[in-house]
Amino acid sequence: MWQTLLDRALMALVREGNLTLTLPDGQRRQHGDGHGPAVAVTIHDPRLIGRLVRNPALAVGEGYTDGTLTVADDDLYGLIGLCVRNLAARNGAWWHRAADLGRNWARAARQFNPAGRSRANVAHHYDLSGALYDLFLDADRQYSCAYFARPDMTLEEAQAAKKAHIAAKLLLKPDMRVLDIGCGWGGMALSLARDHGARVLGVTLSEEQHRVATERARKAGLADRVEFRLADYRTLDGQFDRIVSVGMFEHVGVPHYRTYFRNVRARLAPDGVALIHTIGRAAPPASTNPWIAKYIFPGGYCPALSEVMAAVEKEGLWQTDVEVWRLHYAETLRHWHDRFVANIDRARALYDARFCRMWRFYLVASELTFRLNRQCVFHLQLARRQDAVPLTRDYLHPASAGPQRRAGLAHAAE
Amino acid sequence: MWQTLLDRALMALVREGNLTLTLPDGQRRQHGDGHGPAVAVTIHDPRLIGRLVRNPALAVGEGYTDGTLTVADDDLYGLIGLCVRNLAARNGAWWHRAADLGRNWARAARQFNPAGRSRANVAHHYDLSGALYDLFLDADRQYSCAYFARPDMTLEEAQAAKKAHIAAKLLLKPDMRVLDIGCGWGGMALSLARDHGARVLGVTLSEEQHRVATERARKAGLADRVEFRLADYRTLDGQFDRIVSVGMFEHVGVPHYRTYFRNVRARLAPDGVALIHTIGRAAPPASTNPWIAKYIFPGGYCPALSEVMAAVEKEGLWQTDVEVWRLHYAETLRHWHDRFVANIDRARALYDARFCRMWRFYLVASELTFRLNRQCVFHLQLARRQDAVPLTRDYLHPASAGPQRRAGLAHAAE
Repeated sequence: MWQTLLDRALMALVREGNLTLTLPDGQRRQHGDGHGPAVAVTIHDPRLIGRLVRNPALAVGEGYTDGTLTVADDDLYGLIGLCVRNLAARNGAWWHRAADLGRNWARAARQFNPAGRSRANVAHHYDLSGALYDLFLDADRQYSCAYFARPDMTLEEAQAAKKAHIAAKLLLKPDMRVLDIGCGWGGMALSLARDHGARVLGVTLSEEQHRVATERARKAGLADRVEFRLADYRTLDGQFDRIVSVGMFEHVGVPHYRTYFRNVRARLAPDGVALIHTIGRAAPPASTNPWIAKYIFPGGYCPALSEVMAAVEKEGLWQTDVEVWRLHYAETLRHWHDRFVANIDRARALYDARFCRMWRFYLVASELTFRLNRQCVFHLQLARRQDAVPLTRDYLHPASAGPQRRAGLAHAAE
Repeated sequence: MWQTLLDRALMALVREGNLTLTLPDGQRRQHGDGHGPAVAVTIHDPRLIGRLVRNPALAVGEGYTDGTLTVADDDLYGLIGLCVRNLAARNGAWWHRAADLGRNWARAARQFNPAGRSRANVAHHYDLSGALYDLFLDADRQYSCAYFARPDMTLEEAQAAKKAHIAAKLLLKPDMRVLDIGCGWGGMALSLARDHGARVLGVTLSEEQHRVATERARKAGLADRVEFRLADYRTLDGQFDRIVSVGMFEHVGVPHYRTYFRNVRARLAPDGVALIHTIGRAAPPASTNPWIAKYIFPGGYCPALSEVMAAVEKEGLWQTDVEVWRLHYAETLRHWHDRFVANIDRARALYDARFCRMWRFYLVASELTFRLNRQCVFHLQLARRQDAVPLTRDYLHPASAGPQRRAGLAHAAE
């Protein structure tokens, strides 16, 4: 029965591309319009068939990770590309149709992230061995989208360009107090202190990140300018001249957006500037891919701009600029994937082959979602006062800027 | 009775500033905290008092226009500043509290703008004598926010900078087909043709604007490159390489946002780029000031970004960039106001003193709403493909740009 249902499901789902499916009993099926590169998938376990019918977005990743689903030449780009293309063509997230029913209450439950669950979510991902991250990230362990200011940049150059671009948007001056919400292994905070003279408090919920970041600050001789704290951003007090938060908002969850921005506003000095860097979606609100939510980022969500802005507006912050990075994260993930594959033997020694398949599936699925399915990065510059940021964006491009000015228009001070 | 109610209302409303109110019977009242410049208002007609209690946001403007409410030294900035400051402090549009009840259905009715009503709304404002607009606009009749790329720019320079900035965002090449939705008196369309070699179709619902724009194209020898059409944008067909729409979205109305963006998408070539320039609000959705809605812009509305983006997302467009212009429109309006006042004798000859008071109230109230009450301008760059626009914003700042590229990242073409 499942076999017939799978046939029907694939008939409806796979309209584009060239899929050959080999079933556990050796039967073969052809799906798609025959155009594009051939993708040959084999299902080795009959029990996977039912799961594929019931929840393909979860079961493809699970089958690949378990090894009960394989693809010829281990062509993960072909397999996931086929999934994304066919379901993106329907103008929604490719896992979204099935999950649409009851979405709102389900989302509220999945993204309910009070402090305790936030800690658990963070530990799930970021307390993995640091050695794993060294196998695919750059030496500074920038685990967020790089900025390819020129297309030929290396990953290291593009991560440095990202930090420089963010620093420019923060309009830093020496000795400014900066809060880094979700500081990771400390690379951003250390750069802002070293290169811009800032005094930084970085907070993370990951014990591993906190330990590494603190050690890095000590080794760099920056322990007097940079403090890392194992803390939830919702428990802080005091005010900061600048707030930066890179790749953390994805873990907040829609039910907590107003709390997030209320805290940003509360921690920001009256003339302060904040820069929130987050994955987003150039499409209506959708749900998180169930495989990603289960195995990679529990509690995570990539918002539409309309969702973020509704919370920003209600919490009384000015959105002074919104940059939309397209394809930069696809390129970043391609670099990460290629490095991971180059180091696959070390990765297998660290974990096992199953973990490595899961991790590669995560990297490829993420890359193709940025490339083909309307995922992007939002750079939200926020302030409490409209004139906290210059009135043109020329300051981001010093070579072409006129005389520097903060609130240059004649009557701005009124 | 109304007098007592007015006292109570003013006690609650006017917490900041220094208001002296003289009633029709000669009685005087003091309101506010006594700080800031003194504003001395006289009410000359007892019937105005009840209207002020019931709907202050409407009645202040009506009283000033009628002459039944005057302010010492004709200090309109003082009067309106007092209104805006006190009600903005409550973190909402200053007329919004009273109008909040039943807002949503009322808004749907007020902003229901099918083609017939759109024509009437447009005629109300834009079919006013062209001679009036010449008394306060620049010679090109740019009736939208100028861009003060440098704070010392003249209005003419800042309007030219606006057109150049928009042209840069449109990434124009010679002979590209451009659609200008809401072309006004044709200044933008003529510039794009003259300075960038574009072939432009401009549409307007104003007969006066259509006549003037067509005549200007003929005189400029651009009639072969620029066509102006008296048409609703919803009735067009064909596709365009670029779409520009400046200061028109304010007239669309929230119930029509999806229709607007559906038409933008339908008229845009697959690799096309659109630039929508609109007044907006860095705050939650609110209602239009009732005086502005009644006397100046019937059917008009200034959206929050969350409202615009929800429609953009649903209609499948990429928001490739969002610039938020702060204070540029306040400065533009200050220029318009000063020119209008300098030409007030000619304005009175053209219309009458009552009309001139109304127009000045409109200009000052608008300026102070931009300066004090979270109004701004959104520059929305939209596309159907994420790589229709370069992947960094360097192209907007040629002096600092690296090698020009359209879809520069290595794997972007996948």
